[in-house]
Amino acid sequence: MASMASMFAKPATRPVSHHPHKPLSRQFFPSASVQIRRRPTSATGALRTRAALIEPDGGRLVDLRVEPDRRDEKRREAVALPKVKLSRIDLQWVHVLSEGWASPLSGFMRESEFLQTLHFNSLRLDDGSVVNMSVPIVLAADDSDKQRIGESKKVALVGPDDVPIAILSDIEIYKHPKEERMARTWGTTAPGLPYIEEAIKNAGNWLIGGNLEVIEPIKYHDGLDRFRLSPADLRNEFTKRNADAVFAFQLRNPVHNGHALLMTDTRRRLLEMGYKNPILLLHPLGGYTKADDVPLSWRMKQHEKVLEDGVLDPETTVVSIFPSPMHYAGPTEVQWHAKARINAGANFYIVGRDPAGMGHPVEKRDLYDADHGKKVLSMAPGLERLNILPFKVAAYDKTQGKMAFFDPSRPQDFLFISGTKMRTLAKNKENPPDGFMCPGGWKVLVDYYDSLTPSGSERVPEAVPA
Amino acid sequence: MASMASMFAKPATRPVSHHPHKPLSRQFFPSASVQIRRRPTSATGALRTRAALIEPDGGRLVDLRVEPDRRDEKRREAVALPKVKLSRIDLQWVHVLSEGWASPLSGFMRESEFLQTLHFNSLRLDDGSVVNMSVPIVLAADDSDKQRIGESKKVALVGPDDVPIAILSDIEIYKHPKEERMARTWGTTAPGLPYIEEAIKNAGNWLIGGNLEVIEPIKYHDGLDRFRLSPADLRNEFTKRNADAVFAFQLRNPVHNGHALLMTDTRRRLLEMGYKNPILLLHPLGGYTKADDVPLSWRMKQHEKVLEDGVLDPETTVVSIFPSPMHYAGPTEVQWHAKARINAGANFYIVGRDPAGMGHPVEKRDLYDADHGKKVLSMAPGLERLNILPFKVAAYDKTQGKMAFFDPSRPQDFLFISGTKMRTLAKNKENPPDGFMCPGGWKVLVDYYDSLTPSGSERVPEAVPA
Repeated sequence: MASMASMFAKPATRPVSHHPHKPLSRQFFPSASVQIRRRPTSATGALRTRAALIEPDGGRLVDLRVEPDRRDEKRREAVALPKVKLSRIDLQWVHVLSEGWASPLSGFMRESEFLQTLHFNSLRLDDGSVVNMSVPIVLAADDSDKQRIGESKKVALVGPDDVPIAILSDIEIYKHPKEERMARTWGTTAPGLPYIEEAIKNAGNWLIGGNLEVIEPIKYHDGLDRFRLSPADLRNEFTKRNADAVFAFQLRNPVHNGHALLMTDTRRRLLEMGYKNPILLLHPLGGYTKADDVPLSWRMKQHEKVLEDGVLDPETTVVSIFPSPMHYAGPTEVQWHAKARINAGANFYIVGRDPAGMGHPVEKRDLYDADHGKKVLSMAPGLERLNILPFKVAAYDKTQGKMAFFDPSRPQDFLFISGTKMRTLAKNKENPPDGFMCPGGWKVLVDYYDSLTPSGSERVPEAVPA
Repeated sequence: MASMASMFAKPATRPVSHHPHKPLSRQFFPSASVQIRRRPTSATGALRTRAALIEPDGGRLVDLRVEPDRRDEKRREAVALPKVKLSRIDLQWVHVLSEGWASPLSGFMRESEFLQTLHFNSLRLDDGSVVNMSVPIVLAADDSDKQRIGESKKVALVGPDDVPIAILSDIEIYKHPKEERMARTWGTTAPGLPYIEEAIKNAGNWLIGGNLEVIEPIKYHDGLDRFRLSPADLRNEFTKRNADAVFAFQLRNPVHNGHALLMTDTRRRLLEMGYKNPILLLHPLGGYTKADDVPLSWRMKQHEKVLEDGVLDPETTVVSIFPSPMHYAGPTEVQWHAKARINAGANFYIVGRDPAGMGHPVEKRDLYDADHGKKVLSMAPGLERLNILPFKVAAYDKTQGKMAFFDPSRPQDFLFISGTKMRTLAKNKENPPDGFMCPGGWKVLVDYYDSLTPSGSERVPEAVPA
């Protein structure tokens, strides 16, 4: 086994920048300026998809962004409407809805959609078909909002500076049953769940559903907007690359060589199955995450290094940002993660142990059974078309000095490196075993934790894994 | 308006018996000894249904009762197996399962069925079709049960006296995630929900699923077994009566004239729709109910009087007992109530305000939005074949001196008599307004409350309706 010290023997090919606005390497950036063919007859705007890729839910990809030549008119209209202010997470949902990740949803949920989501994790369409929809995409309003809206059937959704972002029309205002929403979405009402604390507990007691028109495409101006490809952009990219299979890997953590092994192995299996050109969609989640997750900008730098270091093949990998906020709702949320990727053209979805899970906020145990996520996903209504690829367990094989699929016949040879352990090592600027993560990627993590502690000298005690 | 005193002027046609074992009047008792055609090729035993009635879920009615000539063999087999003791509620579920109310379930749920029920309120069958299944039908076991079972793939389910009731085979033992089960079934984890206190809180931390064989048909020997018609019995009865529509009315309360008006009016509407012989299935729930509900034996007496007094037509009404325990899980449970009636041959289901609802156990509000039950029911997967008939609101019309459909143009003329008000009047031996309930039925209620207070003289103060 190589020594720990040799980990960083090979210098990173170029210095890691900490500036969040510095564009990342182009090597994993997909071709720009895709042509979107709009259907002029559609009220909401929609895309026809090419036959080669999996059909989006509901048969066509929803696009709720107003055409450039109508934006001024919509801005003028919005100014005259009652206003509802969007939170940071609300804006992320506006983004998600606007690009059709939640197709066929045409806006924030009305009560009938909300109830179907809570009770059935799916929506029945007018033609009797069923699409998956497991997390409520709803907009909360308080009593003063409701009073201000009065009898108006339209509202303007505005940013923190009161600038109109979108118009919601043919609205329906209904009660926000917070306790029931929490219980049915998370399977618990225990205090301390991140999304609930952030977005539900102090939100209004009403929900507003309606049809959404987004005046301008949502941008964050954080240097990462070019990685925020819409489902239509991704479909064009996959088509351009002549993909005959697209396998999606959702993540919100740094990529280590165990992940890389899994992704490489998945491609190998797909080739064995007869696909000629399977493309990997490496798709980090870019919306709200809890405070102790590694922030998006650092994760993107880390993913870049993983491609630079050759751990994944840029030719067959598309790295893009999934704009959804994170619920940490385990088996309920993994369905959303999978469903949204269908809309982006993925027909294979890799699911790991305890997807979208976390520790129970008040009890000393994981919130969800680690196997429920993949089981629920494999049975979920509306996801029958998607091929679910369960994650094989990878661990550090001490005999090979690298990450490998766990071999239950020789457990003593394997070392499991938990996320907690990984974070503790990076915080302490210690190295993980050689072969756990590519050196460039590991350095990004060390730099991230370094940026949190200005003195740079404090040693973090090793946490006890949950 | 007739005076209160005139309420009981017309004597009841025969004295009301309080003896729970005395058989009720035959006038609403369906013909006995129906012929059940078994399919000898089926392992579990199953019925072919006649074409005239709605198909049971999964295409055939499950029957898990062992044939008479194989009972001794099964008893001998059971004696040698590890034993799991059934609670009173477990036994009711064994009854429910054995007769195919939960078709196509062939026993207590395994984990895949449990998870689908919790997340999707429905099960996907091998042929891709979907049936509704909203409440978990599961059997809890504790650590000592699990240890005793060991590697055995079969267990005997025994009564309180250790007599074998059933065999569960090809078993699967899996974790009982109580908090998640509560949250996803009730939409709350607040303490004090009746079914949870009775059947979940102190139950074991494991669940056992498997295929059920019930050695003898379940009987309660309470004088009411003859009213416990199985789905197959009911289908035969409806066929015998040449029903071309069957409309089910689930209830767990005494029938007042508002209910009767609704049922009569439903029949009228069905006749107008062109049906020649719609039959009412008046189907009181017979399993576990909470302490302050009127017990089954008294409710059955009360229902008998309603038919005796001519409020409902015995020719077009079948009164039978639905053996399920009550969850009080609102929109989730109403789906179970409806689904089970499909299996019994009903193609119309009457749904009221806040079905299967109750007050929130710790907050001063109803647990569920009163309209969610009928909305969820109308959208529920697997219930597309069932015609949902929303309950019209009936109230006491002071101008007519009888129960009538509420007319919102003259609200001042209507009196709403809540269940709380009704109970308080009956407890105090006071009469409701003339025309609220038939005199014979009201007397049963008064007698019931009288039986609870031996002195018979205590006045119950009027409760404030919630």
